[in-house]
Amino acid sequence: MNLKDYIANVPDFPIKGIQFKDITPLIGDGEAFRYATKQFVDFTKQINADIIVGPDARGFIFGCPVATQLGLGFIPVRKPGKLPREVIEHSYDLEYGSNTLCLHKGDVKPGQRVLIIDDLLATGGTIDAAIHLVEESGGEVVGLAFLIELVELQGRQKLEGYNVLSLMKF
Amino acid sequence: MNLKDYIANVPDFPIKGIQFKDITPLIGDGEAFRYATKQFVDFTKQINADIIVGPDARGFIFGCPVATQLGLGFIPVRKPGKLPREVIEHSYDLEYGSNTLCLHKGDVKPGQRVLIIDDLLATGGTIDAAIHLVEESGGEVVGLAFLIELVELQGRQKLEGYNVLSLMKF
Repeated sequence: MNLKDYIANVPDFPIKGIQFKDITPLIGDGEAFRYATKQFVDFTKQINADIIVGPDARGFIFGCPVATQLGLGFIPVRKPGKLPREVIEHSYDLEYGSNTLCLHKGDVKPGQRVLIIDDLLATGGTIDAAIHLVEESGGEVVGLAFLIELVELQGRQKLEGYNVLSLMKF
Repeated sequence: MNLKDYIANVPDFPIKGIQFKDITPLIGDGEAFRYATKQFVDFTKQINADIIVGPDARGFIFGCPVATQLGLGFIPVRKPGKLPREVIEHSYDLEYGSNTLCLHKGDVKPGQRVLIIDDLLATGGTIDAAIHLVEESGGEVVGLAFLIELVELQGRQKLEGYNVLSLMKF
């Protein structure tokens, strides 16, 4: 199965000049969604992760199926104001302005083997923040998995030393 | 397994007077997350749904595992500006102000048997909007499934005539 057949290219979204990779045709197709999830499940077993972390909202789309299929817990990373208990935060710069991500304090336990799953590796800002939060909690990031990697944006350079899987490269 | 053991009550979140039901301990526990998902999977089979719809973001948490376990597609309902292709919209009133939800035009096909999954049935505004969007697309809503129902808020009254499952009532 060629997963790229299920990705729609949407020009000028969300702003002019961006070629947005729309994953909704992939997840809307039962076979393609299951096939992609299977690749993540196999990777999770291979690296022997014992907990899945995923950023809001599209990290939930693949992270939660992997967690339930393997009987692992899932921990969300979310924007400020979304998680109800005490959080730790990490901010990072965007081209204009900055962004902050949060993780519930104590959700990731010291020594846990963590796989972080997201839909997209672009410049790497989101995943870098998620890694910071997991490591600050004492977790060991044993893998990073993405549905799509936008190679030109060189996000992978931020991830040196980590075990990175991307199912599709554009 | 008593799923209520995995729900944290957080007083005064997001605003004073609200007793927020935090589902993160449940999804953070591999066995509890799998057990809850299994109830949704069984319901999906029973009502013979052929596609899953879930509202952003916590509808993704249970909707996506159910979809991948059964080899069904998943279609997200999201806030304005999040879905890249042409959408249909539905707005609804909140206590103060209003909210709008969107669905990609043509994602739900006429005659499809749709199960809508979300984490919470409170006043029913979100699920009512999701039902409108699915039915406007020509889909048949054959079931509505929630992790938690807040009985006092009487959201179920908006859902008369639908097949409703809630795994926990508070």
